Amino acid sequence: MRILGIDPGLRHTGWGVIESHGSRLTHVANGICHSEGADLGPRLVSLFDQLDAVLRRYAPDGAAVEQTFVNRDGAGTLKLGQARGIAMLVPSRAGLEVGEYAPNAVKKTVVGVGHADKRQVDHMVRLQLPGVEIAGPDAADALAVAICHAHHVTSPAARARLRA
Amino acid sequence: MRILGIDPGLRHTGWGVIESHGSRLTHVANGICHSEGADLGPRLVSLFDQLDAVLRRYAPDGAAVEQTFVNRDGAGTLKLGQARGIAMLVPSRAGLEVGEYAPNAVKKTVVGVGHADKRQVDHMVRLQLPGVEIAGPDAADALAVAICHAHHVTSPAARARLRA
Repeated sequence: MRILGIDPGLRHTGWGVIESHGSRLTHVANGICHSEGADLGPRLVSLFDQLDAVLRRYAPDGAAVEQTFVNRDGAGTLKLGQARGIAMLVPSRAGLEVGEYAPNAVKKTVVGVGHADKRQVDHMVRLQLPGVEIAGPDAADALAVAICHAHHVTSPAARARLRA
Repeated sequence: MRILGIDPGLRHTGWGVIESHGSRLTHVANGICHSEGADLGPRLVSLFDQLDAVLRRYAPDGAAVEQTFVNRDGAGTLKLGQARGIAMLVPSRAGLEVGEYAPNAVKKTVVGVGHADKRQVDHMVRLQLPGVEIAGPDAADALAVAICHAHHVTSPAARARLRA
């Protein structure tokens, strides 16, 4: 099964594609979509087009998007929500079911603890995808989301741990 | 000039199309896109498809989306943001410039005061678009956003008032 993981953000949206063969995972590709400029509309169109190109190029069977809550300010959360809407839309339009995972659930699956820091996540992603070259922190997070989804869809035990 | 106004929401997204001939406005159509169900992805796809159908049917030259900030909880703001991302994406993908107006700016333009209540907005929308039949409160808000944009793009004085 080929899985696309997405870590959405208006400025930088990380993405990562992995293959899951039973419990064995392999890396396919990862990268970061950038969108800049003053006007929100063209930025969202650019994000849509970039993610759509990733989807067409790597043709995943499943997708997962990180479920982030920003607690700082309403404006920041709204911005993130707009980018996240596009990140959910693109694979859903292609008919894929899209898993949603809170950051703690991702960390719990990938590292083993929900309060792991970014370096631990990065380390465990590299360990589980030997030889991977990671485009940046957002791409590492996206690969972690993809790994989380792979465990979730293939292992009832992982599903039970996430619920616990 | 034909203008599409959108009042985004995950459950109900209001839309309204008006024509502006100098200072004279006429109503073209209005309605509400509904999206329900447990899965966010298919809801966003449904919203995308419904708004895209409105855009193709009425072929507006310009668009405007209400700029809402939810101050309750992060989860609610994130949901609204996701719907708003789709509302911005659809007209932007068609090459339209999309105006963004805060609720107070819309009320100030349509009613004359920024703290007007929903009934006043509804009343002034009906007054400015004689004979209009409004599909519901979200559609009334969407028509108000379209009226606000019409004033904004045609009248330098209105632009100055909005900035004040």
